[in-house]
Amino acid sequence: MKQSKLLIPTLREAPADAEAISHKLMLRAGLIRQLASGVYTYLPLGFRVLKKVQDIVREEMDRAGAQELLMPAMQPAELWQESGRYDVYGPELIRLKDRHGREFALGPTHEEVITSLIADEVNSYRQLPMTLYQIQTKYRDERRPRFGLLRGREFLMKDAYSFDRSWEELDETYRAMYDAYTRIFTRVGLNFRPVQADAGAIGGEGETHEFMALADIGEDTIVVSENGTYAANLEKAEMWWEAPAASDAEIAPMDRVHTPGVHTIDQLCAHFGAEASAFMKTLLVLVDDQPVAVVVRGDRELNETKVLNALGGERIELADNAAVERLTGAEVGFAGPAGLAKVKLLVDREVQAMESGIAGANETDYHLANVKPGRDFEADLVGDFRNAAEGDMSPDGSGPLKFYRGIEVGHVFKLGTKYSEKLGAAYLDETGRRQDAIMGCYGIGISRILSAVVEQHYDDNGIVWPEEIAPAKVHIIPASAKDETQMNLANELYARFMAAGIEVMLDDRDERAGVKFKDSDLLGIPYRVVVGREAAEGRVEFKARTAADKETISVEEAFERLTGK
Amino acid sequence: MKQSKLLIPTLREAPADAEAISHKLMLRAGLIRQLASGVYTYLPLGFRVLKKVQDIVREEMDRAGAQELLMPAMQPAELWQESGRYDVYGPELIRLKDRHGREFALGPTHEEVITSLIADEVNSYRQLPMTLYQIQTKYRDERRPRFGLLRGREFLMKDAYSFDRSWEELDETYRAMYDAYTRIFTRVGLNFRPVQADAGAIGGEGETHEFMALADIGEDTIVVSENGTYAANLEKAEMWWEAPAASDAEIAPMDRVHTPGVHTIDQLCAHFGAEASAFMKTLLVLVDDQPVAVVVRGDRELNETKVLNALGGERIELADNAAVERLTGAEVGFAGPAGLAKVKLLVDREVQAMESGIAGANETDYHLANVKPGRDFEADLVGDFRNAAEGDMSPDGSGPLKFYRGIEVGHVFKLGTKYSEKLGAAYLDETGRRQDAIMGCYGIGISRILSAVVEQHYDDNGIVWPEEIAPAKVHIIPASAKDETQMNLANELYARFMAAGIEVMLDDRDERAGVKFKDSDLLGIPYRVVVGREAAEGRVEFKARTAADKETISVEEAFERLTGK
Repeated sequence: MKQSKLLIPTLREAPADAEAISHKLMLRAGLIRQLASGVYTYLPLGFRVLKKVQDIVREEMDRAGAQELLMPAMQPAELWQESGRYDVYGPELIRLKDRHGREFALGPTHEEVITSLIADEVNSYRQLPMTLYQIQTKYRDERRPRFGLLRGREFLMKDAYSFDRSWEELDETYRAMYDAYTRIFTRVGLNFRPVQADAGAIGGEGETHEFMALADIGEDTIVVSENGTYAANLEKAEMWWEAPAASDAEIAPMDRVHTPGVHTIDQLCAHFGAEASAFMKTLLVLVDDQPVAVVVRGDRELNETKVLNALGGERIELADNAAVERLTGAEVGFAGPAGLAKVKLLVDREVQAMESGIAGANETDYHLANVKPGRDFEADLVGDFRNAAEGDMSPDGSGPLKFYRGIEVGHVFKLGTKYSEKLGAAYLDETGRRQDAIMGCYGIGISRILSAVVEQHYDDNGIVWPEEIAPAKVHIIPASAKDETQMNLANELYARFMAAGIEVMLDDRDERAGVKFKDSDLLGIPYRVVVGREAAEGRVEFKARTAADKETISVEEAFERLTGK
Repeated sequence: MKQSKLLIPTLREAPADAEAISHKLMLRAGLIRQLASGVYTYLPLGFRVLKKVQDIVREEMDRAGAQELLMPAMQPAELWQESGRYDVYGPELIRLKDRHGREFALGPTHEEVITSLIADEVNSYRQLPMTLYQIQTKYRDERRPRFGLLRGREFLMKDAYSFDRSWEELDETYRAMYDAYTRIFTRVGLNFRPVQADAGAIGGEGETHEFMALADIGEDTIVVSENGTYAANLEKAEMWWEAPAASDAEIAPMDRVHTPGVHTIDQLCAHFGAEASAFMKTLLVLVDDQPVAVVVRGDRELNETKVLNALGGERIELADNAAVERLTGAEVGFAGPAGLAKVKLLVDREVQAMESGIAGANETDYHLANVKPGRDFEADLVGDFRNAAEGDMSPDGSGPLKFYRGIEVGHVFKLGTKYSEKLGAAYLDETGRRQDAIMGCYGIGISRILSAVVEQHYDDNGIVWPEEIAPAKVHIIPASAKDETQMNLANELYARFMAAGIEVMLDDRDERAGVKFKDSDLLGIPYRVVVGREAAEGRVEFKARTAADKETISVEEAFERLTGK
């Protein structure tokens, strides 16, 4: 690649609306350009990286025994109606009508298409197990596209779907995909963690893991034990729990305390001179439109997913102020478990184990002290309804939990028969009986990987590409394009690298050396060879992008270092 | 690849609605499945072929110096409004609205996107020339999708766009693309012809060629001279023309002849006892909604494109009956050039050169004999307004013209400044002056190539893939899956081919030999190795898909023939 003719529009400054480091750097390095909100063009260097990621994904999927196919983006609405998702998917599903008025969705995912394909084409247990995958453009009309490729509306995914004959067989397939994902994310150079995730929300029955690239910009919180054996999405994360020994301490009767204008936990702590853990925080939520009160300790956060799963619900949202007032008979800030008759009452096990606590009185400007579980209120359900917190002990006893931010780059999921039942993907087993195929699905955000890698691999001067997905391996820069000796040697080296099968970019532009070095740092090609003053002596400056200093070495040595010959 | 676990759903019979041979065979061989009208899934074997075609296209485009990038399918309507195509594109353009009500088009092509990109990112003559390409999914809501991948609504294209500084520079770029296309279509195994095509209709200013795969199913007629030096799309095709020497023969005055119910040329020939060439056929068309009469000889076909170009129009359609009656004052079938006052009159040069002819009288049930050009009517414009006909002499004198049917698989086009002007793709030249970039565009129907290849490469038993894009090179078939010796040798051969880097498919299914052979012929893998009765002696049956007979040879020889070792 000769730089003078490549479209690499580097920028000194990123556009003001780019927030994430990776977004800024990918714009500045001329890798991508926005066409519309959440819709990007991959410029030639960006495309090279994208293609390398695709190639790695392909290799590892093929190695894991998956078969590649390619499904359409235009999906008939009927299929989505069959699966029941056409209406529930909401405004993220991009819909369109063809010239005959027939409705289509632009696929954000392909469970419907692949399941109906298998329903048509697979009949016998002898054809299974089978895993199919594609690398394909997906559409999701995000409410707030952002961070460049991290949350886009048109993006590239690898999605795979497996069809097995038993849950045990699915376990094996799942493990093969899990291992392939581990290889893929390792090869692209990510610092990542597979974490347990919640299956309920997506409608599956089984195990699911998310592959999280660690990055401060990440939208997910992941929870990891000290030695790393336990790792989960915050949604899913559990914690060690041992009920304290029952106490027979005498608790005074409830005491109605006037607390005008005291709404928040901080205000309560100040007012009562107590720790946040002394309070019983009562939150009103709607689960599938039914009101539910959930009580967690004052220092804890409600975990909506756990509540949803406990009730087998599909949707959960916080009740609005009007609903809270209607249900508690008090302004917001004074809800409590005692005397809250109209709603189902879910009590976190920590609260249930308290000898007593302070809670809202369901009366504006009043709280109750000495509220005793079992005596002053009766839970409909006791369980774990809170988020894990840093410092909690890991559920497997592997030390205290720590929090990290993560970017979800992959997801493996045991779907079970949810789609095969609805769309008729059944086969005849050895005894001639019809059985629903047991499915798994497995996604990788191909374009998102680019952003995640850059979030982890940059310095003040630009991107620092991991070698396996870098747009080139070597960047040759003649210090002066006007110096014939330098240009000759640079061209000679360029030809030699090309002949040796090394990907190389030659900066043949007639620019000042400083401009070229700055661009080179920004582009982040792993090795730089500067052909400068010592060109006549056959010596060049060699520097790894990650190295602090350059070395002056002979051309031969530079060649050896890069080719291993 | 082991066949037992691959999704290759072969069919004995193609669905009744598949008309084209290629469509039938691709369905029967389990290469594709329809998801919706004109929307297909590529199954694993089909995808392998598709990928090989893509790889060839990529190699040749890279070799020609083009840079790959990837643009989005979702294109903001504003861009199409800027180019002026949003309204004129009609119902083939798939439109959608995002959740905020913003309008988008699903790109059928990317002139707007690439030109606006270059407008933003290229400023200096030093950055040009530049050719960019992508392999990407296109959308076109065809009125009548058909023939499988030949005319689909979601399809894969390679589209390239070049930006040059002069028409001479564009000539070079165009030639490089033309040559790359020639290599590509040769490598995929197509019998094809580049033909001159019409530029006017698409709005360009310059040269354009279509690459036509010869096939009876093709929707285009191509016109080729005997020795092949002249080849053009029928739309564009010209013919040798030499005006006959002027005659001073006396022509009797026009003679009004009663011709009740005589409408068609055949009826006229019978009625007048004359050849079709004795008549002046007068057709009324609307060019950009303005009525125009065009007169061609009775044995000729009107060429709408030539008319359109002669008038510099954008749209042409035949006038409906009501319009014809209004303009001629007669029923349809009695139009003629003499006395046709209300419309512009275009006269084909052949007609203009006739001494006299028979024409409609613009009066129901009457014709005129002895109509003499120049005397009885005055043309507003004389020119070539007819289709070439088989037997016409080629315009370059290279023999008589013959007609073929062709499938358009590629298109190269000198666009000029149409888009760069409208979308601001200008650069500063050496003297600091702003100049519009001179563009070319170059398309290849990647998915369509599959159909075109199959249209040319099949026999009664199935597909006969050209080696370079075949889903595998060798098909190993143990005659009996129950015979251990056979299976062992088959597996051993399979492993050896794999190790030698030969793409191989092993039919390890427990099926009758006849079923396996039938499937093998249908799939069309270039070489078949049957491990049968002589397995114990290390001998196998070897057969090229194109060969009439099999040979029994040693394993070693089979290996040598296929690896060249």
